[in-house]
Amino acid sequence: MSSDLTIDDVQALVTRAPFHRWLGLTVTAVHDDGIELTAKWREDWVVNTEHGYTHGGVLAALIDLAADWAMVKQTGRGVPTVDLRVDYHRPARRGDLNARGKVIRSGRQFATAEAQIFDAEGKLLASGRGTYLTAPPL
Amino acid sequence: MSSDLTIDDVQALVTRAPFHRWLGLTVTAVHDDGIELTAKWREDWVVNTEHGYTHGGVLAALIDLAADWAMVKQTGRGVPTVDLRVDYHRPARRGDLNARGKVIRSGRQFATAEAQIFDAEGKLLASGRGTYLTAPPL
Amino acid sequence: MSSDLTIDDVQALVTRAPFHRWLGLTVTAVHDDGIELTAKWREDWVVNTEHGYTHGGVLAALIDLAADWAMVKQTGRGVPTVDLRVDYHRPARRGDLNARGKVIRSGRQFATAEAQIFDAEGKLLASGRGTYLTAPPL
Amino acid sequence: MSSDLTIDDVQALVTRAPFHRWLGLTVTAVHDDGIELTAKWREDWVVNTEHGYTHGGVLAALIDLAADWAMVKQTGRGVPTVDLRVDYHRPARRGDLNARGKVIRSGRQFATAEAQIFDAEGKLLASGRGTYLTAPPL
Repeated sequence: MSSDLTIDDVQALVTRAPFHRWLGLTVTAVHDDGIELTAKWREDWVVNTEHGYTHGGVLAALIDLAADWAMVKQTGRGVPTVDLRVDYHRPARRGDLNARGKVIRSGRQFATAEAQIFDAEGKLLASGRGTYLTAPPL
Repeated sequence: MSSDLTIDDVQALVTRAPFHRWLGLTVTAVHDDGIELTAKWREDWVVNTEHGYTHGGVLAALIDLAADWAMVKQTGRGVPTVDLRVDYHRPARRGDLNARGKVIRSGRQFATAEAQIFDAEGKLLASGRGTYLTAPPL
Repeated sequence: MSSDLTIDDVQALVTRAPFHRWLGLTVTAVHDDGIELTAKWREDWVVNTEHGYTHGGVLAALIDLAADWAMVKQTGRGVPTVDLRVDYHRPARRGDLNARGKVIRSGRQFATAEAQIFDAEGKLLASGRGTYLTAPPL
Repeated sequence: MSSDLTIDDVQALVTRAPFHRWLGLTVTAVHDDGIELTAKWREDWVVNTEHGYTHGGVLAALIDLAADWAMVKQTGRGVPTVDLRVDYHRPARRGDLNARGKVIRSGRQFATAEAQIFDAEGKLLASGRGTYLTAPPL
């Protein structure tokens, strides 16, 4: 079931999406049941200019895609998100973000995966989980 | 409890955030318990260039902020998101998006609000809900 | 797509489950895209004997089943729950509970439905939504 | 911050609730940031008599309370649940259930905790997370 995709293969797949390029994504590790990525900070992310907080929507996007691509060795691609839950633990300040995705349970029709977002010092900023469609389209 | 904020006031508050400007947000209505906004499509949103699908992270961001700002008459500002749930109903194709946020229940410590995202034809693309912190910081 | 099930038919289907009997469920209305039920209070529900609060797990069960059975005209039965979100708005005190379920979006592979729980005075105690599997088992 | 509660102390606190007694809860371990419990199967849990499946509402209740009581060393008691997410991974068949709760992030106003439910063979049946109110009532 597990494919032979390398980090470079996954980076190439990820980079095809304009939204992923806007997020400045670099794939730093690909595991059988997980993935690690870095997103490059940009001013466009900011919701509060005084404190430089990154908008929760950017964190939600990173949670979604890290959980989704955690399954890339099985799916060979990003798959449709059915639903998503995100918990915000600490404000995200200016700076690149690290995301880790991990499969919780993968089935033939759908899968559950989780993800965590860390700042450069390794502090947990947000975490969450989603349901992903692994069945072929009807 | 309900403030005298006009649409123009809320638009001015919303526009201060670089992320909101990147989303091209226009506030089209402000109710006592809700808000309506439009986001202007941009190529950066796309996850799948073949079909022109907008990334779910953009929809999640719109769900979050529409639910958050649904309470603006009570809060006078965007408030911290505690957690968020998003359900994806249909692929979002190229085009501007309409978001509606509505308060479900507002308390002194936290509030629950929900939001829906529609395309230009009024089709429901995504919906969700979040928990928001209404208590003053400790 | 919509079946000819009556309230009595749905009541009979619901009552087959021991857990539903334990909840004392009465089906009070069946709509094309929704359902209404009442659950009969019992001492076993209580988490806090001083205040007589009903445990959130009982409310979660009612949210789940009201959302699930909201689709009964399409599904003809209860279907597997993929995931569930519940928001708690007010403590539930001693007394029967009313639950309303409503379909948000129904597809061929899965559906999203929501539900609300009210006390006897019509106060909203909890609400939530879930993803349900509508595809035939693989 | 961490209290001196023993397993027996926590068992005594848990057992005060009629709902917890109905679930047949035994506390098997208490950690600084977590808890382990067993729930004793009963016929009342069943949703499908043919296959003997336990209703998802029972699993949701166990997820909620295991996540909630994961913080007992900090909170000294069960605390109000703000919201809950549950993911269902496999059908739960007749038999006792094991639940493990773990704190993800605990703050002065609210905390996030997660939980997993296993069958007697250690198979993961369900998992989830919730937001809990750790602030004193206003």
